[in-house]
Amino acid sequence: MEKPYYIGVIGAGDCSDSTYKHARNLGFEIGKKGWTLICGGLGGVMEGAARGCIEAGGITVGILPGLLKDSANPYIRIPLPTGLGEGRNLLVVRASDILVSIAGGYGTLSEIALALKMNKPVIGLETWKNIQGIQYVSDPSEAIERVTEFVSSG
Amino acid sequence: MEKPYYIGVIGAGDCSDSTYKHARNLGFEIGKKGWTLICGGLGGVMEGAARGCIEAGGITVGILPGLLKDSANPYIRIPLPTGLGEGRNLLVVRASDILVSIAGGYGTLSEIALALKMNKPVIGLETWKNIQGIQYVSDPSEAIERVTEFVSSG
Amino acid sequence: MEKPYYIGVIGAGDCSDSTYKHARNLGFEIGKKGWTLICGGLGGVMEGAARGCIEAGGITVGILPGLLKDSANPYIRIPLPTGLGEGRNLLVVRASDILVSIAGGYGTLSEIALALKMNKPVIGLETWKNIQGIQYVSDPSEAIERVTEFVSSG
Amino acid sequence: MEKPYYIGVIGAGDCSDSTYKHARNLGFEIGKKGWTLICGGLGGVMEGAARGCIEAGGITVGILPGLLKDSANPYIRIPLPTGLGEGRNLLVVRASDILVSIAGGYGTLSEIALALKMNKPVIGLETWKNIQGIQYVSDPSEAIERVTEFVSSG
Repeated sequence: MEKPYYIGVIGAGDCSDSTYKHARNLGFEIGKKGWTLICGGLGGVMEGAARGCIEAGGITVGILPGLLKDSANPYIRIPLPTGLGEGRNLLVVRASDILVSIAGGYGTLSEIALALKMNKPVIGLETWKNIQGIQYVSDPSEAIERVTEFVSSG
Repeated sequence: MEKPYYIGVIGAGDCSDSTYKHARNLGFEIGKKGWTLICGGLGGVMEGAARGCIEAGGITVGILPGLLKDSANPYIRIPLPTGLGEGRNLLVVRASDILVSIAGGYGTLSEIALALKMNKPVIGLETWKNIQGIQYVSDPSEAIERVTEFVSSG
Repeated sequence: MEKPYYIGVIGAGDCSDSTYKHARNLGFEIGKKGWTLICGGLGGVMEGAARGCIEAGGITVGILPGLLKDSANPYIRIPLPTGLGEGRNLLVVRASDILVSIAGGYGTLSEIALALKMNKPVIGLETWKNIQGIQYVSDPSEAIERVTEFVSSG
Repeated sequence: MEKPYYIGVIGAGDCSDSTYKHARNLGFEIGKKGWTLICGGLGGVMEGAARGCIEAGGITVGILPGLLKDSANPYIRIPLPTGLGEGRNLLVVRASDILVSIAGGYGTLSEIALALKMNKPVIGLETWKNIQGIQYVSDPSEAIERVTEFVSSG
């Protein structure tokens, strides 16, 4: 069986309504395409993306910083407690084939940097600015276009 | 949504036909119960358990030592490449609520020890002998009985 | 016994002569002050800083990505092989009380981000620009002043 | 410069006086030989070994489960906080060239197993019994003999 593509969605655990909506739209498209969503499993952008993905019938994996599955948001189907704290950021990146960063703080920046270090594509939507290597887009549908191109070329 | 129980099945990547059959039977019951199978994603016991679980319509997670999803056995639905080598053993244990050990070498022994250190129950079937704390059983159905008791009491 | 301060010096494994010199000057002052140098143990900025620190009679710890002590640069007195690849970046940050970033690529950026996420001070010298939270300085002696202030206030 | 040999000493954080004495004697010989002691940095066997090593003028590294240097015992010269919990056991093993296990509980057993998995020699003194691969000895001086043989043949 061919393995499905894993799309990492990264962003802060706390976000504005408009950012949440972006994440949810993006997650919906990921689910519709049959890709698997990888994220950090908590709130904010991670919840928005997981919610959208589930609404489209997709699969959502949450790689959690703590030791308890219950710390995952309600839209995570496969919560994975690691107990590694910020160390789980590395695992989010290693598990993803490509990442989309939406807004985000320092944790997100660490994931962007690790992904670029590993030569994985990073699509950026209203996220950390002026980081060479990020492919900046202006809305979720443009992000999906970029992911689709990547998947097609893979 | 209530999170499903995660049953870790641990054992060597290479095993005898009879051990593989045990693993497959065990995996089948795990899938039938609606629990999620957690394992190291490679061959032998991990493959047998994942195969049985999939045959019963269950979900299988493989936490891989390497960087590539394709290193997972064909019955893993959620392969997670970690790039941590033996470091992934810790993650198998941290993600599992309870573990069943079937046969196994040193890697398996490290997982048994980490699980007991974290006070997680370990059921043992034809595995490392004389380790205080392992609940030894003599066949897969007895292992499932023990897991069922644990889940019921949870 | 009071534990010594750990000063993390982060930067790329390949760097210009002038950056190397900056790192070496900084390392020298770290050694002279009796602090311990923490770094990633490889070449470039890490080597420059370790070399300076050793020249001043200091102690140098290199937290290595690979499995072999011999991958450390010759100025590392305590090489620690981790086999975690980029995962060792987290350990460099967790071990450091304060970090100085000199130039650097994506790996360095991931360390900056993790440090800021953990509320550890990050001094920046000719490094990633416009990252809110970095305390930018213009030469090694100003970096040492900032570290000294931090240590004094600790 | 040739890198010094790293001798891992593993065992429980709580131990009897006689076990502590064994650890201290062993640590003393390690320090006298000019080898570096690697351990988990906490009490019991780890403290005994570090104490002996320091008394002989040696160097002691403690790879700590928590986030604070101060959790190390007073005889650790290079405390390394990792925040990885039991995950630090892997790092103790990866950093060591050879390990000596004295008494010990499940954490120690996980280190023994990981070391044997990585084909590193494990010398056992009053430790987990009947583990194939452990080189059992009956006192610290015999342990040192075995380590010396290993170092000479390296």
